[in-house]
Amino acid sequence: MTTYAHNTAIVGVGATEFSKNSGRSELKLGVEAALAACADAGINPHEIDGFCSYVMDKVPEYELARMLGCEEVKFFSQIPHGGGAAAAPFMHAAMAVQTGAAKYVLVYRAMNERSWMRFGTGDYGIKPLPFFDNMNYGWYMPHGFHTPAAWVAMFAQRYMHEYGATSEDFGRVSVAVRDFAATNPQAFFYGKPITLEEHQQSKWICEPLHLLDCCQESDGAVAMIITTKERAKDLKQKPVIIKGAAQGMAKDQQSMFSYYRPQISGLPEMGVVAKQLWAQSGLTPADIQTACIYDHFTPFVLPQLEESGFCERGEAKDFIRAGEHARGGKLPINTNGGQLGEAYIHGMNGIAEMVRQVRGTAVNQVANVENVLATAGTGVPTSGLILGAE
Amino acid sequence: MTTYAHNTAIVGVGATEFSKNSGRSELKLGVEAALAACADAGINPHEIDGFCSYVMDKVPEYELARMLGCEEVKFFSQIPHGGGAAAAPFMHAAMAVQTGAAKYVLVYRAMNERSWMRFGTGDYGIKPLPFFDNMNYGWYMPHGFHTPAAWVAMFAQRYMHEYGATSEDFGRVSVAVRDFAATNPQAFFYGKPITLEEHQQSKWICEPLHLLDCCQESDGAVAMIITTKERAKDLKQKPVIIKGAAQGMAKDQQSMFSYYRPQISGLPEMGVVAKQLWAQSGLTPADIQTACIYDHFTPFVLPQLEESGFCERGEAKDFIRAGEHARGGKLPINTNGGQLGEAYIHGMNGIAEMVRQVRGTAVNQVANVENVLATAGTGVPTSGLILGAE
Repeated sequence: MTTYAHNTAIVGVGATEFSKNSGRSELKLGVEAALAACADAGINPHEIDGFCSYVMDKVPEYELARMLGCEEVKFFSQIPHGGGAAAAPFMHAAMAVQTGAAKYVLVYRAMNERSWMRFGTGDYGIKPLPFFDNMNYGWYMPHGFHTPAAWVAMFAQRYMHEYGATSEDFGRVSVAVRDFAATNPQAFFYGKPITLEEHQQSKWICEPLHLLDCCQESDGAVAMIITTKERAKDLKQKPVIIKGAAQGMAKDQQSMFSYYRPQISGLPEMGVVAKQLWAQSGLTPADIQTACIYDHFTPFVLPQLEESGFCERGEAKDFIRAGEHARGGKLPINTNGGQLGEAYIHGMNGIAEMVRQVRGTAVNQVANVENVLATAGTGVPTSGLILGAE
Repeated sequence: MTTYAHNTAIVGVGATEFSKNSGRSELKLGVEAALAACADAGINPHEIDGFCSYVMDKVPEYELARMLGCEEVKFFSQIPHGGGAAAAPFMHAAMAVQTGAAKYVLVYRAMNERSWMRFGTGDYGIKPLPFFDNMNYGWYMPHGFHTPAAWVAMFAQRYMHEYGATSEDFGRVSVAVRDFAATNPQAFFYGKPITLEEHQQSKWICEPLHLLDCCQESDGAVAMIITTKERAKDLKQKPVIIKGAAQGMAKDQQSMFSYYRPQISGLPEMGVVAKQLWAQSGLTPADIQTACIYDHFTPFVLPQLEESGFCERGEAKDFIRAGEHARGGKLPINTNGGQLGEAYIHGMNGIAEMVRQVRGTAVNQVANVENVLATAGTGVPTSGLILGAE
């Protein structure tokens, strides 16, 4: 049990537009999203006294603080492991406000990932020194593991072999998520749904991954504000309660290459996260109306549904074939269009959508939302959230 | 007020030897320090379920977890801003154990800073993209601000001008700290005290900094374990209570270049930290018997003493001329020999010394230690701790 679950809340959300070329600095994107989050919450920007983001984010929190006019900042931290960090800043912010270290923590992710520095170029800027990461990459790069797509393809191949999932199953994830993007004006792929045939015909990126199994690259920023449930009462919005917030690494965890494990087609770290989320929230999968399932690459959506308890192991393909993840299904996922359809803001835009679903203000609003679940990046040490109405 | 102060404790300390060439990987150093900390605490390494370090540390916590045999890890974070991170991992660990996110958090810093990757080479590996840091360095580098020594020299020059401190005052810090190193067998400068004359005659690094104003470069690792006071009761050592743990950024904070401020010879961020430490602990400077004052460069020691409340503004030079910071003084500082004399493990070795002072096991033990204070790196967003006996 944790003391922050049920006692802390997300009280403001802000974002820029999502594009392929923002035409301005990441700092400016971050400031815009932060100011929008403050306006949404109804708090003065200089009241922010804590910041939390990803290690990968290149906007220093001190510069954001200076731009917002903050006087004294009392908490700041960063979470490693790329998109695995997506939900963790909310957990750390909740810890900070619950223990009294800070009052209003801004979590943010700002990036010109398309126009400035694309991920997965195979150039990791690694100096020729025997740091662990260099040694680790050294084992895999000679075999062609240069990009995230290649790393995920290996996993997907094995998952298909073990459980009988097919490329069409991955395609069904993409089709459902792009269907939500098609009706979301904020989405890059607004008005552009795809068919399963189009998915199947899209070019190979790294077998078994088609182009339409891979999320976009985007410019943009998202920011949110966390405070105690008590303080949230005096603010502008209906608070979105943090009912569970957890990080997880499992046995023999490594980053994208956890090959010492006896089985390489699972995501036990997501299981570690989920177990904590259910315990903290006191809820079960049946209590969740919609979810944000990290969709940088479609194949990883399936084991996430399993590890989170929405399906039995190996049965996510059946859940997806039945359309339970799509509009009108039992658990519509990524109702903003996900990273495949809305934008790739490293997971944080999906969490913003979950906040809107709890508020009842999502463009693809699911009926009677009481609780939602959000996951972060996969194949790395990761994190997750359960949010809900009071 | 925070809920973690007085309710959490440091229960284990471990370190490698300190050297100029460890002859082994940083990961190995980290594992050795971690195992030593576990043995010291009397806990099984696989009970560690949280990790916290500096963003700059190159030993991934997941690999440390794998080497320690951890099954499930539930908290991990990193603190930005170089040595400003030195005390913050203890605060974040305290938040994690106090809120129930984790039970035993290992904080660590492992580095071959001398033999592998020396700081301050002027090569920051900055890609030619308009990230904030690049722009920021761009303003200063053309004027010769290439290295930490150059950045600190600017500050020191101004501080001398405003308060009448002299190079001899900086030298008195160095002489006192090297005196402690001389009687500490773990110190690199064991048996090698210096005189004020030697300080004055040592070569210029960047005026007004002499060589003996600058800390060493070291290889080595330090690790400590944090848990709740309640759990600490069942462990091997007398718990060292975290009575205060805080981070701080002040108005117009930047990283080493906070030149938008009306005054550039202060460390208001350390004031933000100190104010919180006194409030959390309920103590005053008079209650502190010894302190670890971050000594990467001697000039910064003076304003830290002021911001922490041990002297009035501008009067640290008098405190130091009276020898109050030295062996037998009112507030002996850096009794391990500091980073000037023991080793530069980015601040964490000084905190280990403060733990030993509270336990009563320091080689240069101060009499009747009840409470100690430790600061982290200066000129950047920073952090601090007050530790003490139960």
